[in-house]
Amino acid sequence: MTNSASPLPVTSVDVDAAARVLAPFAVRTPLLSSPALDERVGAKVFLKLEMLQRTGSFKFRGAFNKLSSIPQAARGGGVVAFSSGNHAQGVAAAAQILNMRATIVMPSDAPRSKRERTKGYGAEVVLYDRDREDREAIARDIAGKHGATLVPPYDDPKVIAGQGTVGREIAEDMAALGITPDIVIAPASGGGLVAGVATAVKARYPLARLMSAEPEGFDDHARSLRAGKREPHRAEGRTICDALMASIPGQITFAINQRLLTQGVTASDVEVGIAVAFVFRELKLVVEPGGTVGLAALLAGRFEAHGKTIVIVLSGGNVDADLYAKLIG
Amino acid sequence: MTNSASPLPVTSVDVDAAARVLAPFAVRTPLLSSPALDERVGAKVFLKLEMLQRTGSFKFRGAFNKLSSIPQAARGGGVVAFSSGNHAQGVAAAAQILNMRATIVMPSDAPRSKRERTKGYGAEVVLYDRDREDREAIARDIAGKHGATLVPPYDDPKVIAGQGTVGREIAEDMAALGITPDIVIAPASGGGLVAGVATAVKARYPLARLMSAEPEGFDDHARSLRAGKREPHRAEGRTICDALMASIPGQITFAINQRLLTQGVTASDVEVGIAVAFVFRELKLVVEPGGTVGLAALLAGRFEAHGKTIVIVLSGGNVDADLYAKLIG
Repeated sequence: MTNSASPLPVTSVDVDAAARVLAPFAVRTPLLSSPALDERVGAKVFLKLEMLQRTGSFKFRGAFNKLSSIPQAARGGGVVAFSSGNHAQGVAAAAQILNMRATIVMPSDAPRSKRERTKGYGAEVVLYDRDREDREAIARDIAGKHGATLVPPYDDPKVIAGQGTVGREIAEDMAALGITPDIVIAPASGGGLVAGVATAVKARYPLARLMSAEPEGFDDHARSLRAGKREPHRAEGRTICDALMASIPGQITFAINQRLLTQGVTASDVEVGIAVAFVFRELKLVVEPGGTVGLAALLAGRFEAHGKTIVIVLSGGNVDADLYAKLIG
Repeated sequence: MTNSASPLPVTSVDVDAAARVLAPFAVRTPLLSSPALDERVGAKVFLKLEMLQRTGSFKFRGAFNKLSSIPQAARGGGVVAFSSGNHAQGVAAAAQILNMRATIVMPSDAPRSKRERTKGYGAEVVLYDRDREDREAIARDIAGKHGATLVPPYDDPKVIAGQGTVGREIAEDMAALGITPDIVIAPASGGGLVAGVATAVKARYPLARLMSAEPEGFDDHARSLRAGKREPHRAEGRTICDALMASIPGQITFAINQRLLTQGVTASDVEVGIAVAFVFRELKLVVEPGGTVGLAALLAGRFEAHGKTIVIVLSGGNVDADLYAKLIG
């Protein structure tokens, strides 16, 4: 909680500007309540349905806001990004709309659906070995050769402001309902989504408690928030939450999250699988494992929820059919 | 088109009254647009997401409106209904809220998820053989013994008015967007949903073309609309659209549909399967086969859609996980 008086790198004014940029292109996703869910957890829950966003995740918002900020003179070189999947699609779709060339550096074990969908938006996909190659170095090399602009997945004020429009819509919809949220939760990998959401929600609801949600073990935000400084997670291997495997919070995102977040919550892969099946069976929505980790923590009783008003961002729905079939079976 | 000057059995005033009854209990489901879908079909499409309704289908609306109209003195006898699944859940959930006893007569081959969910709402489930027993006779027998009120699945003004709130919300949301629908499509089994939707939509948009959607072969509405009188379909056997197997339009529903509908469209089981997978992959929503037949007809090019503004009701999402896994695989 150092530097509490210094200005934050992204403010709600930046989010408002991003909302104007995005309005003609992004889907204004619904905020859903479910009697079945409320009864199950004994709380009033609202779900922000970002799997219904263009490209199937919130990532389109930050990518489009970032690409729109590139000066015309620099657009000819195109853009390059590294991503396990959702940022890839967001950048590719934004580039397609803005008529820019996009190259995406993806791990070779990214879900097939995410690779194919990225190509479907007209991007060139370059695969790398997650365990042996440095994706940032590969992306920078491509950026150098083509004069392309690197689009960071989270540690960028324009990207964070774009993701913040998720929180701005939540705040607008809650205000329209006349209901004040007690807790707002969003998944965290590098922390861009939850930083943007916190920025926008706190501007209207300063007493709301903002929380990051991560897969058990991949809990670098939870650790860092407790420690008061950026700390890597200790996990080795994989989680089914393929979208949430960043090793340490971003610098810019953590400068925001350290000030605006109350705590980090986690859920195990088993709890995430149960949540994916619950969402299929009871809510009739397709959510990818990483997109449901906040709800998984709620369903697993990982934090005190009884009687509270809770908003949870379901951040994406890009999941391979074979994994999905296993999780709901 | 006989009796065109006679009053219809349900009007938009009845739908307005149903909307007031339902407001505290039903989910006001979103109307979603999808850039991916619009690009695919070359039209502006809005999807009414009734799989997000309480019980996973629109059926809760009609059931709750009907049960709420039963006088207090008659409520002690409870209610009885026959249904292949979605009406069963709607009646069971409505009875649970209103603290009434519910008995549901279901075919023994109804999807397991629908049977279990019906029991989950506290109803007693009585199974019958679809090919050898008369479900209406069984239900009437139970009604006679217990003094229970029979809740018809579609051929009842209160049920139709309840389903009409789907159309009322569509009309409200389109008006808020300032967009006039050219075509509005809803699935038809007995025709209660499409009759209610047509009643409400036509009240605000008299020039909109209303269409029923049915599985190929189970096209009793398409046939009846062409013939100008109620005609049964000629199908034998089954369709994957388990919710849409009524053999002939209802009397009351057809009195409305004959006046307000332009035509009936159909889609084959293969086309429905493709649509279910499309909705999973591109829209991230879980829709049951019968719930997607209107969208299936659009995706299959079964009617002229190019350049039009089209609203399609996705009517439910109660599908067994094993069938769903096959359809999306």
